[in-house]
Amino acid sequence: MSGDWLAGKAAIVGIGHTAFGRRGEFAERGTFAMACEAVVTACADAGIDPSDVDGWSSYSDDAAAANQLAMTFGAKRFRYAAMAWGGGGSGICGAFLNAAMAVATGQADCVVVSRSICQGEGGRFGQALAGVGGGGLPAPFSFSSPYGLMSPAQMFALAARRHMHRFGTTVDHFGEIAVNTRRMASTNPAARFREPMTMADHHASRPIADPLRLFDCCMESDVAAACVLTSVDRAADLRRPPARVASATMGGPYRYGEGLLAGHQMADDDFASAGQRTVADDLWGKSGIRPGDVDAAMIYDHFTPMVLMGLEDFGFCAKGEGGAFVADGHIRLDGSLPLNTSGGNLSEVYSHGMTHVIEAVRQLRGDAVNQVPDAEVVLVGGGTGTSPTSALLLTR
Amino acid sequence: MSGDWLAGKAAIVGIGHTAFGRRGEFAERGTFAMACEAVVTACADAGIDPSDVDGWSSYSDDAAAANQLAMTFGAKRFRYAAMAWGGGGSGICGAFLNAAMAVATGQADCVVVSRSICQGEGGRFGQALAGVGGGGLPAPFSFSSPYGLMSPAQMFALAARRHMHRFGTTVDHFGEIAVNTRRMASTNPAARFREPMTMADHHASRPIADPLRLFDCCMESDVAAACVLTSVDRAADLRRPPARVASATMGGPYRYGEGLLAGHQMADDDFASAGQRTVADDLWGKSGIRPGDVDAAMIYDHFTPMVLMGLEDFGFCAKGEGGAFVADGHIRLDGSLPLNTSGGNLSEVYSHGMTHVIEAVRQLRGDAVNQVPDAEVVLVGGGTGTSPTSALLLTR
Repeated sequence: MSGDWLAGKAAIVGIGHTAFGRRGEFAERGTFAMACEAVVTACADAGIDPSDVDGWSSYSDDAAAANQLAMTFGAKRFRYAAMAWGGGGSGICGAFLNAAMAVATGQADCVVVSRSICQGEGGRFGQALAGVGGGGLPAPFSFSSPYGLMSPAQMFALAARRHMHRFGTTVDHFGEIAVNTRRMASTNPAARFREPMTMADHHASRPIADPLRLFDCCMESDVAAACVLTSVDRAADLRRPPARVASATMGGPYRYGEGLLAGHQMADDDFASAGQRTVADDLWGKSGIRPGDVDAAMIYDHFTPMVLMGLEDFGFCAKGEGGAFVADGHIRLDGSLPLNTSGGNLSEVYSHGMTHVIEAVRQLRGDAVNQVPDAEVVLVGGGTGTSPTSALLLTR
Repeated sequence: MSGDWLAGKAAIVGIGHTAFGRRGEFAERGTFAMACEAVVTACADAGIDPSDVDGWSSYSDDAAAANQLAMTFGAKRFRYAAMAWGGGGSGICGAFLNAAMAVATGQADCVVVSRSICQGEGGRFGQALAGVGGGGLPAPFSFSSPYGLMSPAQMFALAARRHMHRFGTTVDHFGEIAVNTRRMASTNPAARFREPMTMADHHASRPIADPLRLFDCCMESDVAAACVLTSVDRAADLRRPPARVASATMGGPYRYGEGLLAGHQMADDDFASAGQRTVADDLWGKSGIRPGDVDAAMIYDHFTPMVLMGLEDFGFCAKGEGGAFVADGHIRLDGSLPLNTSGGNLSEVYSHGMTHVIEAVRQLRGDAVNQVPDAEVVLVGGGTGTSPTSALLLTR
């Protein structure tokens, strides 16, 4: 079975999102109404009537149910509804994989990928896990929670410290990612955080979980976003230039079955990885595209060190050289691999990765606020820390 | 795009389940341990080591998380994890659709579809919906709950009564389905309810929601079950005869966007449907297989009237003639369309449809307890009442 079967069969033809709110800002409006606005906006962008959407795809147990969306929009047909199975933003590109498979196999003609986050109810993403939901801790946390390892920042801090120990990575390297991302956001009128940030500002921000400081950690937001996918054939008749799905994949770390740090599904030889080497290998192997072909990358930036490790996992630099890679300016707008060009999770908004995909589409359309000249290939790397993670290659 | 692209690319090569317990019987054992037993059993049946499973598929928000299953079994790779998006047993065949797409497109080599139900915690499936979970009622129920329409039996009773009014269907017709299913279970050593049932027993069982009596309603169970899928090519090298996926689909009722009875997503011209006409049309259209080609059918039997309406929706008889079809003995073991040959949800076990798929595989292997001679084509119809519903065609 050739692995690149999916290539060039489906395309993203519409993108949309609500206003970007602070955590809890849209609590009264609610998850479902926000999802509807994002769907309407994305369909308008595509020039497709929402009642013509016949498939729905999401991830992270999104609460805006597919059948209620289909009913609300008076769907003429309702032929597909799937959820990438896993937590947080890890499954984001898996939701696009499912959507693209449904389109490519003829199961559905037009699939919306949506995610709506409205944090008025329940726990915060960033707090100790004991406070999230009402179902108790996931089993692996039974081994780490008694020692106080309970919040996402604490877990990712361990991988960051390990990378520093193993490869000489410094907080300046993490800071470069934060500062560069803020620089991107500063020219994006929609971004939530646009004030200039210096390396000194980064270092002066309050400690969260050593070595992570506040500006190493993404914000939390209320936001909904959606993308419309259809076949490449149909895309040719629509109003916006399509962003073709060149490849999409899901995958766990390559030593998934052994020696996992509880709650930290990123095992690797060095325990200092974003756990994305397998999805990277799959993606390059399937698509025939190489890291050097990528014009811009949108790598999930919940915590700055995970971006650095993601750059290594995806092969943009060698293992352990992520620090030098970012210090050399490669991820800046004028660098070899402009990164998170709309401001990412750190400075634009935290949409569990949807706005990373949307920014990738904008780069391929040529209308990004920080446009990479003639961008033809964009990588999206999904969230890390829960498995499976995922990745997506879009081309013009 | 030819719709039958999936045909003959993936096959079910292993089946397994736990013991069949009464509701709450395995509460101390728990959902996850039960899922693991089902996976081990299904993999042993296939002759595949569980660590070689690289994809996971489920539905109805199954609580035995894919990443924990992969971790538990020391997965060598972890490349796919998806959930059909929707409640109850409606998504069962959607989980097989996702698994088959993942195998057919090369995303995964070996996908387990699993479902584990352990009802020690939370509400019962059959009770008023206000008692299920902690998140409040789904929005559509806001319109019907104030009038007392709150339990599944009440909702399906409305469609049953409508079918009786519109087409002259009788409680004897519903009873024929219950009695026939019990007859099938009586020769199945694993079935939970094997005592003989007469039509008089059916009519004497206590009323639940008019016209439904106790024996029109399925049981509730603690059970986990799993199936292993891989490519048809690889299946040829395995120990058991493969059950090929000839077609799989998901779909909502054909007038999904209009006039839905709240909580009852089965709109149709007559409001007396199982809401499966669109999946039926898709399935026959895609596969080129016709209702007359089907040797046995496993149609989700949460409530007897929905089986009768499903037989109509799938085209085994004309609309309104389901009563006469079952009265004429077509669904008996010696009839033209032996139905739910292991005893179904009504008499074998309530596994949200997994045991319907497992029985379909057994029929195709030729080792069912109530074997249909030379069965070559078996239909599985997913649950109804929430959307999207789903359907699956398996062939020898």
